[in-house]
Amino acid sequence: MHIPLDRDSSIPLYQQVQDYLRNHIQTGQLAPNMRLPATRRLAKDLGVSRITIQNAYANLESEGLITNREGSGSYVAPPVMMKTPVSQSSSSLPLWQQDLQIKTSKAQPPSHSPHPDLISFTGVGDPNQFPLKDFHKSIRAIFQQKGIEALAYGDFGAGYLPLRQTISHILASQGIQTHPENVLITTGSQQAIALVCQILLNPGDVVLVEKPTYNMALDLFRTLDLKIVGVPVDKDGMQVDRLEPLLQQHHPKLLYTIPNFQNPSGMCLSRERRRQLLTLAERYNVPILEDDFVGDLRYNGRSLPAIKALDPDGRVIYVGTFSKMLMPGLRVGYLVADGPVFDRLVKLKQVSDLTTSPLIQHTLNEYVSVGRYQAHLRRSVRLYHKRRDAMITAIEKHLPDVDIMSPQGGLFIWLRLPNSLSALALLPFASKEGVAYAPGSWFFPESSEGLSFLRLNFAVQTPEAIEEGIQRLGRAMAQWD
Amino acid sequence: MHIPLDRDSSIPLYQQVQDYLRNHIQTGQLAPNMRLPATRRLAKDLGVSRITIQNAYANLESEGLITNREGSGSYVAPPVMMKTPVSQSSSSLPLWQQDLQIKTSKAQPPSHSPHPDLISFTGVGDPNQFPLKDFHKSIRAIFQQKGIEALAYGDFGAGYLPLRQTISHILASQGIQTHPENVLITTGSQQAIALVCQILLNPGDVVLVEKPTYNMALDLFRTLDLKIVGVPVDKDGMQVDRLEPLLQQHHPKLLYTIPNFQNPSGMCLSRERRRQLLTLAERYNVPILEDDFVGDLRYNGRSLPAIKALDPDGRVIYVGTFSKMLMPGLRVGYLVADGPVFDRLVKLKQVSDLTTSPLIQHTLNEYVSVGRYQAHLRRSVRLYHKRRDAMITAIEKHLPDVDIMSPQGGLFIWLRLPNSLSALALLPFASKEGVAYAPGSWFFPESSEGLSFLRLNFAVQTPEAIEEGIQRLGRAMAQWD
Repeated sequence: MHIPLDRDSSIPLYQQVQDYLRNHIQTGQLAPNMRLPATRRLAKDLGVSRITIQNAYANLESEGLITNREGSGSYVAPPVMMKTPVSQSSSSLPLWQQDLQIKTSKAQPPSHSPHPDLISFTGVGDPNQFPLKDFHKSIRAIFQQKGIEALAYGDFGAGYLPLRQTISHILASQGIQTHPENVLITTGSQQAIALVCQILLNPGDVVLVEKPTYNMALDLFRTLDLKIVGVPVDKDGMQVDRLEPLLQQHHPKLLYTIPNFQNPSGMCLSRERRRQLLTLAERYNVPILEDDFVGDLRYNGRSLPAIKALDPDGRVIYVGTFSKMLMPGLRVGYLVADGPVFDRLVKLKQVSDLTTSPLIQHTLNEYVSVGRYQAHLRRSVRLYHKRRDAMITAIEKHLPDVDIMSPQGGLFIWLRLPNSLSALALLPFASKEGVAYAPGSWFFPESSEGLSFLRLNFAVQTPEAIEEGIQRLGRAMAQWD
Repeated sequence: MHIPLDRDSSIPLYQQVQDYLRNHIQTGQLAPNMRLPATRRLAKDLGVSRITIQNAYANLESEGLITNREGSGSYVAPPVMMKTPVSQSSSSLPLWQQDLQIKTSKAQPPSHSPHPDLISFTGVGDPNQFPLKDFHKSIRAIFQQKGIEALAYGDFGAGYLPLRQTISHILASQGIQTHPENVLITTGSQQAIALVCQILLNPGDVVLVEKPTYNMALDLFRTLDLKIVGVPVDKDGMQVDRLEPLLQQHHPKLLYTIPNFQNPSGMCLSRERRRQLLTLAERYNVPILEDDFVGDLRYNGRSLPAIKALDPDGRVIYVGTFSKMLMPGLRVGYLVADGPVFDRLVKLKQVSDLTTSPLIQHTLNEYVSVGRYQAHLRRSVRLYHKRRDAMITAIEKHLPDVDIMSPQGGLFIWLRLPNSLSALALLPFASKEGVAYAPGSWFFPESSEGLSFLRLNFAVQTPEAIEEGIQRLGRAMAQWD
């Protein structure tokens, strides 16, 4: 296969290869199920290093354009991946269904058998720290004291009022003044973000996000056909000084930000930038959606006021969750908003699913009220603090060539691989060595960005497993030298 | 106050009065907070009966246009009911919030103090029958056996696979052939309906519904700015022979139907009409959303096949729930769909709230698997059968002038009041006597329809309370003679 390459271009070679292949696959010049040249062979043909081709193939695989078959090489993917029952041929589908086929498909998981002792640096909190016993005690108390009330529809609308009071107390202790009347209980913070989008944006509207940002928010924005415009992040969070031209150019309908221990970068938006952000939001009439997913997990430094706490005018919608601090399986989050948008959000929540499980709402309120949540939080902070330190030490020891910025809290370390190494291409090697991470491209508006980054969760593993896992990552990387 | 009335018109007098007042309120000729004449006085002025004026006022109150202040009469409502904190004046709101104010508002609950011993015929199943002990046993089992797994994110996407298997077994026993791969777990059936609307309809699109139909579905359709077109119901369910001209005229994007023990009419769609419905759905390329909210609660007659069971081509999306048969506080429902629409629904569910509480999904699966659900269902059928009979007997005895159609199952009896008596106007009198019901107008696309109907839930009260409650309803009605 001949691929024309421009060695003087600023576009990296792997990207030129992948652009050429993508174009030829999408136009059908490379037909579905056609076998692609082996990476070694194509590298030799084009006079480039094998890593260049491996990077290009891995990225195309993540876009769903090519598939890797165990022991047999890479193939052009079938045009659409459908999951209809075998008995059903596409031709008998009703007409209205034929426009609904999902055109893109997700990357396949690696096809070799999983490592027997995988150390995964993905996920959120450490499942072994879930306060199962205490939470079960709270459930038992609810069954004994409330029973029927907790299993009826309850107060649909904004949620169980005592829990909303409890949340406004928690928030007050963090500097946000709010009333229970402005707190809406949601099914995790994901639902809060989705409701806000449904109220404020239409397909084609622009949402501004940090670059990188939370992958499931990006997934939501894409599913709603929004245009996503990214603002780069540095050690002080979103680069707010680059925001104004974007506001002028794109007229965004929403600005989505994670100011504390940002996912995935781990950085905090500085106090100065928080104020600037609010000023710009006012000047350009754009709502701010503040996602404070782990604001309580601080290990060093002084805590910063929430953007919502600096906003007297209802410009900020604040979103929080118990998934990360407590247990993701609860599916309880909340949002705080002022003004007419709050009433609209309550109404939309109500018609969307009536209410979040009253049993879980009652139990969670019981759990927090008797002081178990605060105790759990203190334990988590102590534990995750040590694990963060263990991971930074292990990285310095085993991965001398990578770049990281040390986070002051949260769950994540954001890591940049050396020599334009692609985290997607590294994934099968890491997997073989028995270590897993989240590739950086998941967190960018365009999946062709962030290829040399990866996200490590330091909270899910013990210090010993962290040391071993980072060592394994180093071994996987060594196979590229 | 002088209101011009046409006594020869086919428009009832109360409606002429209410149209006149609505018009003068909306144009501002009757100013906010202005006191309206007392019903007795206005009746005398216009030479009509007091009930005419009371009907008109009650209907306007339900539209949020007038409010009733205890002991002081009726007033024109303030133009917008906002619930912002007292400190916040509307002028300081950001610009983007000012378009979001909700224009309509809900009727106020009756302002007098509640009856000390209210017999309510609203709601779904009887809370005293919730299988609290058995369900708590299942939760305990899950904490002991699964613990962490049940409180992690679990299998997002379509939901906990063993529960989806269990649901496909339950459905198979009812004649629907499906695979777990085509079952999506949702937060109650409400979320299933909302997801389907988000995928298939845009604002302004037409949805066809039975008239009357489930009020929270209507509320959803209104919130999504859909146009709602109703097809009348008779003793065999939706009058399918009136459907074709509506399909030709309105090009609906969805047909929403409750074929079994319809909410609120209690009637079942006949077998013949189920087939006709499918034929029309094929001819006019319209998807059917089948809401089978209490299909299992049959007391007489033979069960009918689900419309989904008659559909080989993926034209029907079937929705079920555990809220009505078991406990509404669970918030677990599901949908069954074939073809690309299923993948789209899964994706939208995932970005909307990641997943429905894994703890509840695990517990519910445990509860059903060990046979507790089936036993509970048999008990419910025996119990509610008796209560339906008790309510029909009580109605025949105490309400000789009303019309009802006797339902073969479900939860509801749909009742028509005599002499154009408005169920809304009757509500405060019923409330004073100590009985509650759902006024018929809640279940119609236009709130000016169905005024003389009301819905009684026979499942929530004991036979003794049913006898007493219907007697009270009779006393409330007697005050209108």
